[in-house]
Amino acid sequence: MTEPKHAKRSKKVPRINHRTVVGRRRRAKTEEKIIRSALAVFARKGTHAVIDDFIKAAGIARGTFYIYFRSTEQLLEAVRLLLTDEHNRVVEEALVGIDDPITRLGTGIRLWMWRAEHDHAWAGFVARVRLHGTKSLEAPMNDLRHAKRLGQVNVPSPLAAMHLMEGAGTSALHGFLAGRPVKGYGDAMTTVILQGLGVDADTIRTILSRPLPKMKALPRHEELPD
Amino acid sequence: MTEPKHAKRSKKVPRINHRTVVGRRRRAKTEEKIIRSALAVFARKGTHAVIDDFIKAAGIARGTFYIYFRSTEQLLEAVRLLLTDEHNRVVEEALVGIDDPITRLGTGIRLWMWRAEHDHAWAGFVARVRLHGTKSLEAPMNDLRHAKRLGQVNVPSPLAAMHLMEGAGTSALHGFLAGRPVKGYGDAMTTVILQGLGVDADTIRTILSRPLPKMKALPRHEELPD
Repeated sequence: MTEPKHAKRSKKVPRINHRTVVGRRRRAKTEEKIIRSALAVFARKGTHAVIDDFIKAAGIARGTFYIYFRSTEQLLEAVRLLLTDEHNRVVEEALVGIDDPITRLGTGIRLWMWRAEHDHAWAGFVARVRLHGTKSLEAPMNDLRHAKRLGQVNVPSPLAAMHLMEGAGTSALHGFLAGRPVKGYGDAMTTVILQGLGVDADTIRTILSRPLPKMKALPRHEELPD
Repeated sequence: MTEPKHAKRSKKVPRINHRTVVGRRRRAKTEEKIIRSALAVFARKGTHAVIDDFIKAAGIARGTFYIYFRSTEQLLEAVRLLLTDEHNRVVEEALVGIDDPITRLGTGIRLWMWRAEHDHAWAGFVARVRLHGTKSLEAPMNDLRHAKRLGQVNVPSPLAAMHLMEGAGTSALHGFLAGRPVKGYGDAMTTVILQGLGVDADTIRTILSRPLPKMKALPRHEELPD
């Protein structure tokens, strides 16, 4: 599609000069440094961490911290969003080529279990810090809506479906972290969640028997600065 | 059964005198006072509460605290056990007369939802402080085993079933506390959990249509000292 001839460029073109660009980049870099080093702090201390922990980890002055974040709660929210976006991205990439909604949803749950089992650094702070609830379930809830239209699921309300996935998904993190899980625990958790969504036994079996797609480019949180 | 004649009483009969009994009673009372006032502290501050909060709330000296608890973690565990025991007791009493295992289990879940909706003080600190995981699910897991023997449920593993109930049950607390839930949210959560346990649709409908038994003598946490 070509632009219609009468389309006008916005009159509000921001004035950019070299100094502005450099300053903006530096600010973005500092903000990312604070968020990334906060990941390691939350991984160690959970939500008990205080502002001193964060400025020490990021190697910045207290005043600098407050330029970017008004409170540890705000920083926590930024960390949540970062983790959520990262996980959504790697799962989305792994699901490329799968079109059937319930297979996408079920495979997404399997990938969650796989990561919980193999990426303990991630599981550790997602269990403690939590992902951004609504945002982390945007993609699965989208698949769920499509699956519902096709009669693949049977749930009394989307909210209940969301809370089931959220709650059982978090429980599973703790299960893997406790080191308890017996063989097949991830598949068992996937099964009870899909059953909860009203998926029939044959479909669950088919989903579990598919080869699990790889999650590429997982961020390696364990290599974060300490 | 009568005692066999050769049974001997233990030679280690503890020596009890009036002073010991009084002292023991006083100690038990102080311990309970600390635990009960800790409930209110955890309700306000969650697990961020520190030892100063607890000694202030209980009106005791720091030294006295350490006679009973070595750390806030140990106190937290005592609070967890108290809340767990209390909830188990009221639910158990409400279920008297119901013998069918899946009806017991399903009704127990409905009672959980009912309490989450109507007893926000309780929901608030169970969501923050958590119950004693294994102990709070002893009774439901017992019903689950019986239900499994009767073919009323279909779960790949008891651990997965437990984590499903635990996770979705906690999620529901947050759901009620957020004030979001639409009408029928509690029933919807009960439905997805029972579906997750592999209970068939007709049985779920029957369980949900039964009159909900009353939970008598609910502890009134909101009246705890502030």
